[in-house]
Amino acid sequence: MDKSEKIIGVIGGGSWATALIKILTENVSKVNWYMRNEEAVEHILKYQRNLKYLQGVELKTDKINVSTNLIQTVKSSDIIILATPSAFLTSLFEDFPKELFEGKTIFSAVKGIIPEYHAIPARFIHKTFDTPYDKIGIICGPCHAEEVALERLSYLTIVCQDEDIADDMADRFKTRYIKTTTSDDLFGTELSAILKNVYAIASGICAGLGYGDNFQAVLISNAIQEIENFIDEVSPIHRDVKSSAYLGDLLVTAYSKFSRNRTFGFMIGKGYSVKIAQMEMDMIAEGYYAVKSVMEINKKFNVEMPIVEAVNNIIYERISPVIEMKILTDRLS
Amino acid sequence: MDKSEKIIGVIGGGSWATALIKILTENVSKVNWYMRNEEAVEHILKYQRNLKYLQGVELKTDKINVSTNLIQTVKSSDIIILATPSAFLTSLFEDFPKELFEGKTIFSAVKGIIPEYHAIPARFIHKTFDTPYDKIGIICGPCHAEEVALERLSYLTIVCQDEDIADDMADRFKTRYIKTTTSDDLFGTELSAILKNVYAIASGICAGLGYGDNFQAVLISNAIQEIENFIDEVSPIHRDVKSSAYLGDLLVTAYSKFSRNRTFGFMIGKGYSVKIAQMEMDMIAEGYYAVKSVMEINKKFNVEMPIVEAVNNIIYERISPVIEMKILTDRLS
Repeated sequence: MDKSEKIIGVIGGGSWATALIKILTENVSKVNWYMRNEEAVEHILKYQRNLKYLQGVELKTDKINVSTNLIQTVKSSDIIILATPSAFLTSLFEDFPKELFEGKTIFSAVKGIIPEYHAIPARFIHKTFDTPYDKIGIICGPCHAEEVALERLSYLTIVCQDEDIADDMADRFKTRYIKTTTSDDLFGTELSAILKNVYAIASGICAGLGYGDNFQAVLISNAIQEIENFIDEVSPIHRDVKSSAYLGDLLVTAYSKFSRNRTFGFMIGKGYSVKIAQMEMDMIAEGYYAVKSVMEINKKFNVEMPIVEAVNNIIYERISPVIEMKILTDRLS
Repeated sequence: MDKSEKIIGVIGGGSWATALIKILTENVSKVNWYMRNEEAVEHILKYQRNLKYLQGVELKTDKINVSTNLIQTVKSSDIIILATPSAFLTSLFEDFPKELFEGKTIFSAVKGIIPEYHAIPARFIHKTFDTPYDKIGIICGPCHAEEVALERLSYLTIVCQDEDIADDMADRFKTRYIKTTTSDDLFGTELSAILKNVYAIASGICAGLGYGDNFQAVLISNAIQEIENFIDEVSPIHRDVKSSAYLGDLLVTAYSKFSRNRTFGFMIGKGYSVKIAQMEMDMIAEGYYAVKSVMEINKKFNVEMPIVEAVNNIIYERISPVIEMKILTDRLS
């Protein structure tokens, strides 16, 4: 299948961006790829492998136009997929000629909150590039990049309020090892994808503290209810949070050994300070930013979110994980 | 706390029965305990430990009246907790003087289907002992007995249509490491507890076949939707299957290394025959019976249950797990 008229450009050089490139090049004949790291670009061109992420993936470089020129990548693409850590997005586009985004469709594969604005990427895209909401999309898991690298069967949910755009994008991502569904829940799926990182931190903290599987199951059951309560309040449309894009994404992150948010939480549960845990990991745990922003957004909505509050107290208020989680256990059922 | 007027009798000598005895003896001054195995009774009296299950648990034998005399245990108890494997229940009570159950409250901690009748334990109790449904209760997880043995914090849901009975029983189970909630969803919680074992088998089969975490998350998201569709059809009352008694119980079973149903499925996924897997395990995988009975019950309700069907086809129709699961992947989203 080849939808050659519209060219996709992927922005970001990490594991998720690499996985998206791998999937896309199964279907399309040409894709643009921007990353900041010059050395990584050279490495990709020379060895058909990314320098630091998913090195096992052999990239089809004949189909990939990889570059460190962001303007060129955006200019020559009709559909842009943002796949950088959320904390880099603002600075990346700070002095960028916004008009280059005019008329383009923009997908977020960020799965994190924009910390400076306490805003989800869709909102950031809308505000920054003037992109109408029905030209903004989300690419949702449950999907660890590491398993895409291994070509293990995974399901993506492609979200856009414009059904045609969602369907078209879903077609581009369908492969032997990727199945796709579509949804129009722009705000709900992205908020859920962001929140799950906070619950993955909570899950890691509890595991680090020695709580067992019985408690984890209770924690996650309560987490999906918190997600539902929150997104139903922020964006009241009909949805089923038991679908893969919500519950599945939460499960894969909270239960999986690949999850950096869970690992971050685990270290904190084991007694590492937040700073040391971050340094040790050398990867950004999106939930670290998300929890603060969700607390901020929730000032307006006042949804009861005991787990989010507990993680916030541990990370930002320096309350002992032992004490905070003990208090939390009385608020769950 | 001591609710001394009403004496509880636990029927069954396995891990879950042992865990329940451990919890109860934290609160009550006397509990009756029936088990079939004479040697186990002697072992308990001599060593304060069960012979084959949760041997690490030191039992407070001064509070426990353990015996192989089922009639005596039932006679001298006001509340009976059934905690045997479901497949043993019918034969256990075959020649039993049913009138001894008159006026007694009966709780099921069985978590399995009665294979001979394709009936949930609550229905079996009602039919066999003439116990009215509002004197029948369920003890639900998410709760692996092994973690109770380790005194890891766990949550139980105590179910009875009679609120006072549920509350009273919940009080008896509250301990330092057990929190309790109550519910009146007799049929829904028990059906869900039974179904989860089928999904744990499915989860094990997929793991055995090499499917990864991404797919597991999709499988479990679809499983909880199947559970909801089925129990809403069988017993249409208001419930939230995202609660711990439903989703939590599913998670702990489908994701945990302690789950015998998952292990059973894993062996089948790895290529063992059903018979060999059962012999190797030397423990009963409740889901093995459940899947057949659920298929039978569903003939009346016609709920779409692709995962249950797949497991049934693999276990009872000898269809290759590889083929059956590949077909299933197209029915999930």
